[in-house]
Amino acid sequence: MSPRSAQANQRLHEEQKERILAAALPVFVQKGLAATRMTDIATAAKMGYGSVYHYFPDKEAIFTALIQREMEASAQHIREVLEMPGTPWERLEWWLSRAMIWVYKHPEVILFMTQVLINEPAHEQLRSLVYQLSRTSHQELRRLIVEGQEAGQVATGNPDQLVIAIQSCLQGFAIEAAFRQDHAREQFPDAQILLRLLRP
Amino acid sequence: MSPRSAQANQRLHEEQKERILAAALPVFVQKGLAATRMTDIATAAKMGYGSVYHYFPDKEAIFTALIQREMEASAQHIREVLEMPGTPWERLEWWLSRAMIWVYKHPEVILFMTQVLINEPAHEQLRSLVYQLSRTSHQELRRLIVEGQEAGQVATGNPDQLVIAIQSCLQGFAIEAAFRQDHAREQFPDAQILLRLLRP
Repeated sequence: MSPRSAQANQRLHEEQKERILAAALPVFVQKGLAATRMTDIATAAKMGYGSVYHYFPDKEAIFTALIQREMEASAQHIREVLEMPGTPWERLEWWLSRAMIWVYKHPEVILFMTQVLINEPAHEQLRSLVYQLSRTSHQELRRLIVEGQEAGQVATGNPDQLVIAIQSCLQGFAIEAAFRQDHAREQFPDAQILLRLLRP
Repeated sequence: MSPRSAQANQRLHEEQKERILAAALPVFVQKGLAATRMTDIATAAKMGYGSVYHYFPDKEAIFTALIQREMEASAQHIREVLEMPGTPWERLEWWLSRAMIWVYKHPEVILFMTQVLINEPAHEQLRSLVYQLSRTSHQELRRLIVEGQEAGQVATGNPDQLVIAIQSCLQGFAIEAAFRQDHAREQFPDAQILLRLLRP
């Protein structure tokens, strides 16, 4: 096998894993971890039952991979913003606008995380994974807010309170967005409203 | 049976129903509607299996009664505030402070509602009940916000956006409060932070 085809195989392998993850997410959101079977995921991914096992040993591994993927993407997003040029307020504004677009576009990812917290008390390991990754995001956003406070652009006070306020609102918006389908999109709060939470 | 004892019986009946509801709520939150059995609820209420059936025909009836009780209490709370003296801003402040104390004290009630929305797609009737009652709360809070806008005390703009912002944040706070147990209470946002969302 040439190095090139090994590389191509690796890429195919990653693509297939991604396809399984994308298909599994809405299944988990609807059924919960306990009631989901590997065959449900295979059907959703339009793959053979055995093929799914080629990539993941069990549904818990798929579930864990999903959590890791989503939380890492979110932490990565904040790290990029921390390194951007501009004042702290400009970077907060940019981060929050992007975060809200993402939340309204993919509310199911946040529902999935929420569901892990609410419904999987039996899966202590998964919960603590979500928890640990959410701590990472918390610390990154906290840095940005503290920079803003030091520059006099963000309200003074306990920065953890502000981080929790912002993160909670985003979580709440995702739940609203997923279920208030009779609301026109213009009724959902925009980033400018949420930024008021941080105003001095 | 004298009228007095009929009245006493009625009171006892209501007390027993309340006892079942109080015991059932954490069971539903932890197990979800599908996995909860009447016997789980009887155990939690420290009542005989048959006694529970004397008050409710099935777990769905208990679930429905819980939703109605909680949503009506919330709508009632807003109606009281609408009739209070004081400026619209003072009444909003009072409402929000009370709402946040309640959210931090009983996050499980909000988790329960969230769970109905996330995990019970099969129970269209229950979802639409939660939905309908949440619309009522929405309309009441909207009145208060519009009064505030007319008095120049609340930010202009689409009042529905502001209602959804406030309600979403409260929902998110409940989820955080239930799971971020390592956070000291002083790290949770207070009503003054959330009120900034409404500032002109």
